[in-house]
Amino acid sequence: MKIEKKEKIYEGKAKILYATNDPNYVVQYFKDDATAFNAQKKGTIVNKGIMNNKISAVIFKFLEKNKIPTHFVEKLSDRDMLVRKVSIVPLEVVVRNKVAGSLAKRLGMTEGQALKTPVLEFFYKDDALGDPMISESCALAFEWAKEAELNKIKTWTWKINSLLQKFFDERGVELIDFKLEFGKDAKGKMYLADEISPDGCRLWEKGTGEKLDKDRFRRDLGKVEESYEKVCQLICG
Amino acid sequence: MKIEKKEKIYEGKAKILYATNDPNYVVQYFKDDATAFNAQKKGTIVNKGIMNNKISAVIFKFLEKNKIPTHFVEKLSDRDMLVRKVSIVPLEVVVRNKVAGSLAKRLGMTEGQALKTPVLEFFYKDDALGDPMISESCALAFEWAKEAELNKIKTWTWKINSLLQKFFDERGVELIDFKLEFGKDAKGKMYLADEISPDGCRLWEKGTGEKLDKDRFRRDLGKVEESYEKVCQLICG
Repeated sequence: MKIEKKEKIYEGKAKILYATNDPNYVVQYFKDDATAFNAQKKGTIVNKGIMNNKISAVIFKFLEKNKIPTHFVEKLSDRDMLVRKVSIVPLEVVVRNKVAGSLAKRLGMTEGQALKTPVLEFFYKDDALGDPMISESCALAFEWAKEAELNKIKTWTWKINSLLQKFFDERGVELIDFKLEFGKDAKGKMYLADEISPDGCRLWEKGTGEKLDKDRFRRDLGKVEESYEKVCQLICG
Repeated sequence: MKIEKKEKIYEGKAKILYATNDPNYVVQYFKDDATAFNAQKKGTIVNKGIMNNKISAVIFKFLEKNKIPTHFVEKLSDRDMLVRKVSIVPLEVVVRNKVAGSLAKRLGMTEGQALKTPVLEFFYKDDALGDPMISESCALAFEWAKEAELNKIKTWTWKINSLLQKFFDERGVELIDFKLEFGKDAKGKMYLADEISPDGCRLWEKGTGEKLDKDRFRRDLGKVEESYEKVCQLICG
């Protein structure tokens, strides 16, 4: 059966989901829209959608090859990615290899400070609440995830971190931190979902420490498109 | 050797620590000073020190009898408690049996909402930072606790919650949430430390739901002293 893109089913801040003629699959369309600070800051990063689709496809393929089940099926076009239809676990899973962003702010620490061991944090995915930080037991108490699911998410996340640290390192980039989302299909099987791109990863160029991620947009550092383009070239060749 | 109270070694918001003639023990003196919202609100709760010393002593004895090692040695006087000298693990360990306080605020939920299972949260004990919430891996990354210590703290905390829920329930009080602190002696042995009192517990009268804790001071609900007195009578007889 040839997959056909059908009606829009959901529009998020950076992507649109379209139904297909197969109920098990949806098309994830990557927009150029950029938001920051819980959508208080809005803008456009020209061709971001094209670059993030490309980068995410390469990374999902790499993770699949390393036994991480992802929702990725195939890249259909510049901005369209065919993915398994999953219901998203309402948790943002953040891994940090160095202090940056909200952790630096929360702990009054300098960005770039080393961490003895990586840090994993959970946030409840709710724009209206500003994605508040939660503990694991909180996710269980509100049944946002079952205990076995949370354990799977943690196990996969640590493995993904090891894999991606090496992956980026070999391409001249330091993986400072990143956010993951997971989803479950109709049968309850878990997959890594969403995207993996400079929108949700802090990526610093090795040697120079130059930021190659959405912080360039968040903090008005300039060369936003150029930085996404650089990551795209380093990752996708 | 008779224990003698010596020089002041530390003054906190609600207690003062004094050295003794034995380096393994200190005297914990309970003040009437009350603070809230990270000490932005300050006041006095008359005889709070006397009541919290009495309540804490009863609860520490109860927990010791139930195999939880505590820093409590004996109540010396109205406001003085002899405790083991420990260095405090810089974590505030919060257990919640119902939604209230900062959890209600963070998740936009109503106070008193039931939780399917109790929630455990860690905060980094740092007044200047406003005691920020942290994940367990963050505590490990900054070596605020070792993994075995964190596991012990979690195991003890869940047990303490079961014990105290029943303890308060039998005395007509619902234990909504509470904060614990732990410390290690010179040999690295862990003890439950600090105090357990209406300053750090949310206690609601069964049936009426009337608040019998520091929220009466925080939120200017009146009958502050009377509520501490009530808890004291229910707990200490």
